Amino acid sequence: MRLRVRQPVALEHASRLLNHGPVVLVSAAHQGRANVMTAAWCMALDFRPPRFAVVLAQETFTRELVDASGALVLQVPPCRMLEIVDGVGTTTGREVDKWSRFGLTRTEGTAGPAPLVGGCLAWLECRVLPEPGIATSYDLFVVEAVAAWADDEAFANGRWRMPLPPELRSLHHLSGGSYLVDGEVVSVAR
Amino acid sequence: MRLRVRQPVALEHASRLLNHGPVVLVSAAHQGRANVMTAAWCMALDFRPPRFAVVLAQETFTRELVDASGALVLQVPPCRMLEIVDGVGTTTGREVDKWSRFGLTRTEGTAGPAPLVGGCLAWLECRVLPEPGIATSYDLFVVEAVAAWADDEAFANGRWRMPLPPELRSLHHLSGGSYLVDGEVVSVAR
Repeated sequence: MRLRVRQPVALEHASRLLNHGPVVLVSAAHQGRANVMTAAWCMALDFRPPRFAVVLAQETFTRELVDASGALVLQVPPCRMLEIVDGVGTTTGREVDKWSRFGLTRTEGTAGPAPLVGGCLAWLECRVLPEPGIATSYDLFVVEAVAAWADDEAFANGRWRMPLPPELRSLHHLSGGSYLVDGEVVSVAR
Repeated sequence: MRLRVRQPVALEHASRLLNHGPVVLVSAAHQGRANVMTAAWCMALDFRPPRFAVVLAQETFTRELVDASGALVLQVPPCRMLEIVDGVGTTTGREVDKWSRFGLTRTEGTAGPAPLVGGCLAWLECRVLPEPGIATSYDLFVVEAVAAWADDEAFANGRWRMPLPPELRSLHHLSGGSYLVDGEVVSVAR
């Protein structure tokens, strides 16, 4: 297996990393504490600037770190991380160190305090755009990507290299512990 | 081929219709005019009440109808509607009658003015929760489902009947005219 290489993604292509509605891992850090959670409710909002919306429940530790730091990373895990994705989404960083529990690696963010979770397909380093009304009413956050990265085996030259090898396909949450994996690619001539 | 039957979905299960991040068709109507558009940027926001977020670009005819009526339907098209999904997303109801152009059928909504597009897998009849700030800043709408329906061959007893037959799988937008189709189901024992 060759080494994977994390390459920068042009910000104008960043929305494509989440267009297909995959589950994401959300990581955040503040004053030496870092956490990661799973979010099925995340989507792109705009191309330029590349903005995204994500739901962060009020009681989560990640939300506390995001509120304190104003930053987070959205990253797309491949289906070989299924057990991690589900485990990270059903435990709380207030009780367990998810990094050691799930054997997660992380590297420092390049543009903010939130770390990048190892083994993912793509990473969006984001700053939170302050919208306290919708955060309070709906746990809804609007963020703007300030740096984007992708595993060059999965995404290159502004496009996903679909269809991806089976182990690199992304996950889509159904309910409980069930997920769909990316299937075939279909295209319309425009 | 047996006739498909549209069955009600309990509102507490409505979020499951969109958890996996499929492309949706958004329909709306006001004072005798009706339109439909495609949206890749749509997600669940909450279980109870079942709330969703969707991006409706400011210049679209559907947005005008939604602003005027305060209502819309989010519906999940199957991949056999690929050409329609892409066509409806790349034309404007200001210039063409999409219903006749794409041979779309519609039935009246049960809970509001927006019609239900025929041939889809699931329908969420929604009212708009007024949030003028984020509508202006981000074209972002928060809606609440007041009625939900599904083709009982695709979703029954509160769950998708995954894996669905190939022609009933949903679509996930990549970019341009390319989409992913739902693939296999993977599960974690909890």
